[in-house]
Amino acid sequence: MLNLFYAPSTCALASHIALEEAGAQYTTTRVDFRNNEQRSASYLKVNPKGRVPALATDRGILTETPAILVYVAQSYPKAQLAPFDDPFLFARVQAFNSYLCSTVHVAHAHRMRGHRWVDDEAAIEAMKRKVPQSVGDCFEMIERELIAGPYVMGERYTISDPYLFTLSQWLAGDGVDIARFPKVREHQARVGARPAVKRALAAEMA
Amino acid sequence: MLNLFYAPSTCALASHIALEEAGAQYTTTRVDFRNNEQRSASYLKVNPKGRVPALATDRGILTETPAILVYVAQSYPKAQLAPFDDPFLFARVQAFNSYLCSTVHVAHAHRMRGHRWVDDEAAIEAMKRKVPQSVGDCFEMIERELIAGPYVMGERYTISDPYLFTLSQWLAGDGVDIARFPKVREHQARVGARPAVKRALAAEMA
Repeated sequence: MLNLFYAPSTCALASHIALEEAGAQYTTTRVDFRNNEQRSASYLKVNPKGRVPALATDRGILTETPAILVYVAQSYPKAQLAPFDDPFLFARVQAFNSYLCSTVHVAHAHRMRGHRWVDDEAAIEAMKRKVPQSVGDCFEMIERELIAGPYVMGERYTISDPYLFTLSQWLAGDGVDIARFPKVREHQARVGARPAVKRALAAEMA
Repeated sequence: MLNLFYAPSTCALASHIALEEAGAQYTTTRVDFRNNEQRSASYLKVNPKGRVPALATDRGILTETPAILVYVAQSYPKAQLAPFDDPFLFARVQAFNSYLCSTVHVAHAHRMRGHRWVDDEAAIEAMKRKVPQSVGDCFEMIERELIAGPYVMGERYTISDPYLFTLSQWLAGDGVDIARFPKVREHQARVGARPAVKRALAAEMA
C-alpha cells in the first residue's frame, strides 16, 4: 500500500491529487511543519532531505514531485495521466514540471526559505521583496509560452495540471495577482472543479 | 536531425554526453554566454527562457535537462540509459535528477545568478558567501544517501550519471573540495574516463 507524507499548502498537494486522479489505494501521513517535524529524527529516516512529499512504496521511498507524479502515472496507466508512448510529448510534460520545480517553486521559496541560500537577515528581507516580481515573471512565462489551454498540454489532462494548480495556489501569498494571467486563472478554476482535486484538498484541510 | 544548443561549462553538458552515449545523430550550436547571446532576440525564439540546454527536434524545441535526458534515453532505447520498464527504478532516476535541477543546481546558481532572486548588491554578495556551504551540504546528501556506487543507481549507468558528472565539475569553482566525497570523486573519475564523455567535453572545449 502506498503512503503519502505531506503537509498542507505545500507542493505535496500535486502528488496527492495525482493519487486521487489515478484511483490509487493509498494512505496519508501529515507532517507537522509548524512543529518542524520534517526535521525530526523519525521523519529524516523517511526522507533525509527533510521535505515533503515522500511516497512510501512496497519497494522503498520515493521523493521529489516530478518523480512521484511520473511514478503514479506509470503505475496506473488506465488513468492516462502522461503520454509515455510519445517521447516528444512526454518530454514536454517533463520539461513543464521541471520548470515548476527548478524555477517557479524556487522563486517562491525565497519568501519563506531564504535561510537555505543566505545567512544574513538583511539579505533574507531583500529576497522577500523580490518574490512578487520573480514569481510574477515565472507565471508570465507560463501564460505566454507554456500553457496550451485549457490544460497545460492542450485538450489532455496530464500530471502537469495538478502541479501547476498547486503552485498557482501560492500566487496570492506571494503578492502576485492571478488576474494578470487569464489562462492560468481559467486553468486554476477548471482543475479546482475536478472531483479528485476537491477530495485531495478536503483531506488536507480536514 | 537533432540540434543541441549549449554553452561550455553549463548543465547542457549532461545532455551533450547523453547524446553521445546514445549514439545519436545530432549537430550542436554554441550560445555565446560571454556576449549574453542567450538573451538575444534570435535565441529567445529558440528558448524563451533564455537558457541552455535546448534541443531542437523535428517536432519542436525541448528544454530543461531532466526532460531532455529522458527524451534521449527513450528515443535511443538500445543504449539503455533509463529503466523505463520498472516504474520504481525509473522514479528513482527521476528523483535524483530532480534533486540536481531543483536543489543542487539552484544552490550553485546563487554564486553567479543572484540577481534572479534579489536586487540588492550586498545581498548578492551574502548569497555568494553561503555557496560553499549550501553546495557542500547538497553533495554530502548525495554522498551519504543518494549515490549507490559505482554509478548513481548502482551497477547500471543511467542518465543520472552524466548529470551528476556535470554538476560535480562545478565543485572547485564553488569552493567545495571534492575530496570530502569519496564516492562522488570516484564517480567523477569513472564517468570522465568514458569515451562518450571525453568526446562531448572535447567538442565543447574546441
